[in-house]
Amino acid sequence: MAASTAVLTAETEILHLERKALERWAKGDPDGFLEICDPDVVYFDPFQEKRLDGIDALRALYDGIRGQVQLSRWEIVDPKVTVCGEMALLTFNFDSDGGGWNTTEVYIRRGAEWRILHSHWSVTKADMRSA
Amino acid sequence: MAASTAVLTAETEILHLERKALERWAKGDPDGFLEICDPDVVYFDPFQEKRLDGIDALRALYDGIRGQVQLSRWEIVDPKVTVCGEMALLTFNFDSDGGGWNTTEVYIRRGAEWRILHSHWSVTKADMRSA
Repeated sequence: MAASTAVLTAETEILHLERKALERWAKGDPDGFLEICDPDVVYFDPFQEKRLDGIDALRALYDGIRGQVQLSRWEIVDPKVTVCGEMALLTFNFDSDGGGWNTTEVYIRRGAEWRILHSHWSVTKADMRSA
Repeated sequence: MAASTAVLTAETEILHLERKALERWAKGDPDGFLEICDPDVVYFDPFQEKRLDGIDALRALYDGIRGQVQLSRWEIVDPKVTVCGEMALLTFNFDSDGGGWNTTEVYIRRGAEWRILHSHWSVTKADMRSA
């Protein structure tokens, strides 16, 4: 029972972290994500030529779009968390008035905190067609 | 030293698994990937409306494109593996005559074997522009 409870707690905590960061993101504030990223975070989105490596590269990217994202409607669809020791995988679809997204977040445990080690955001088929 | 050696071995093993699966993929054979996927694999690519859940859904997708992928040139660019216990994160850019891709693979240890628990393939900025 103890192990099972611990896993549920980690799943709940990770989903809570993600939702809190997205609430800020939807209002143009990227610091919610930056504050929970690991220094060694690696990052993909459709607007980069290749992978970004490290928190400094991600901060530079997010500093450039601060205040620009404004979502009036967004939803985390079918979130799935798999916790394995001190690493965890979170996947979901993100539906919003800013499009439909495929989202992967890999979290890693650092001391008492879960941190994002990897983010991968990409557009779904519907948004590829309209791109 | 023992811990360090074990991590290096897992990193090498995971990269080897990925490369072998891609060698078959490039010749139109998706079974290299299917054979190393976990039953609970979750999957994103730009041609789906949403996440695919489970090996049966992925097999159905791959069965439909068997023999269609033919890459004469491909390269795994800047692979990065982070092993954390029995879960591991592999990210890389995939350059090929079939386009430029952002690739995330999450592996999980099942007994003596590493298995793919999650794949996320998306196109890079250059290919978004030409889509």
